[in-house]
Amino acid sequence: MGLQRAGFYMALVHYPVLNRKGEVIASALTNLDLHDLARAARTYDVPVCYIVTPLNDQQALAGRLIRHWCEGIGKTLLPNRAEALERLRVVEHVGDAVLEIEREWGKSPTVWATSAREQEAALSHEAARRILERSETPHLLLLGTGWGLAPGALGRADALLDPIRGVDGYNHLSVRCAAAILLDRLLGNRGGDR
Amino acid sequence: MGLQRAGFYMALVHYPVLNRKGEVIASALTNLDLHDLARAARTYDVPVCYIVTPLNDQQALAGRLIRHWCEGIGKTLLPNRAEALERLRVVEHVGDAVLEIEREWGKSPTVWATSAREQEAALSHEAARRILERSETPHLLLLGTGWGLAPGALGRADALLDPIRGVDGYNHLSVRCAAAILLDRLLGNRGGDR
Repeated sequence: MGLQRAGFYMALVHYPVLNRKGEVIASALTNLDLHDLARAARTYDVPVCYIVTPLNDQQALAGRLIRHWCEGIGKTLLPNRAEALERLRVVEHVGDAVLEIEREWGKSPTVWATSAREQEAALSHEAARRILERSETPHLLLLGTGWGLAPGALGRADALLDPIRGVDGYNHLSVRCAAAILLDRLLGNRGGDR
Repeated sequence: MGLQRAGFYMALVHYPVLNRKGEVIASALTNLDLHDLARAARTYDVPVCYIVTPLNDQQALAGRLIRHWCEGIGKTLLPNRAEALERLRVVEHVGDAVLEIEREWGKSPTVWATSAREQEAALSHEAARRILERSETPHLLLLGTGWGLAPGALGRADALLDPIRGVDGYNHLSVRCAAAILLDRLLGNRGGDR
């Protein structure tokens, strides 16, 4: 019942991102980000949400969390969480996610990046939704942690999506909430509302 | 630029809610819930997000967190977080939030509750949005933590909103993500998209 014709993937990027001072860093994982993004991915039927971090200890942490909920006692206690967290896949670089999707589809994904900053020539969510409805190319959406994607990650993108605008200029949603709203706008089942 | 004619408020309810076994409990605060809901409230210009808990230590915890970000060092480091967290108000019961809104508007708010379960006669998000566009009565949206609002809280509601449906039956978003999607559907600036 998903609207997209080809696969739509997302990646939560921990490197390269910016810190508060605008420096390029590898951010630390946030436990709840992984849960929330996995649950949103499952809800909107995004097959994989990549967790991108080049740091070994952070990869191990993510792996432990995923195993706990997908194989361990977590699965018994809360089976629907396993259904969500099994959509997470830990990779070292954005390029690894791109390659994996390319192997799956036989063509490179179009990469979209998100930014809270207003940009000339950014793609509206409505236009992005229309593209997904008819595209035969897979898409990968990059979501930045910390203070957002660094130029090195933005530079990989084929297009930038518009920021989520509230009712005035304030534009500081958490990455968890921004991701949920974006999935709803791009893939949500309209008219499924009674 | 908000669409609603009268005030739209929300409340994150920690009591009475259900636990995994369906028992009525007071749930513990989650630090990130407070941040995420405050940021979403600020984004969609919801004037107040009530944090409902009857537990004194939890009220104190919420108060400390709010003061840290609105008055303390947090405000200096991250002024936009103060703008968000100053919209949080800690109250003991849902009834205290209702009374406060009543004092502000001179009339009782219509109370809407959310549930992840399908319910007969629930209000669609589209219908709820149209009501808000022309209503002169304030509204209060109750969001449940834990395993959702207990009957004692649902019983206070004038109407239930539809659950957020994904592309199939899976319906287990975090309260943070569900709140963000609901605000976007009820109050989001449509057509603001380029």
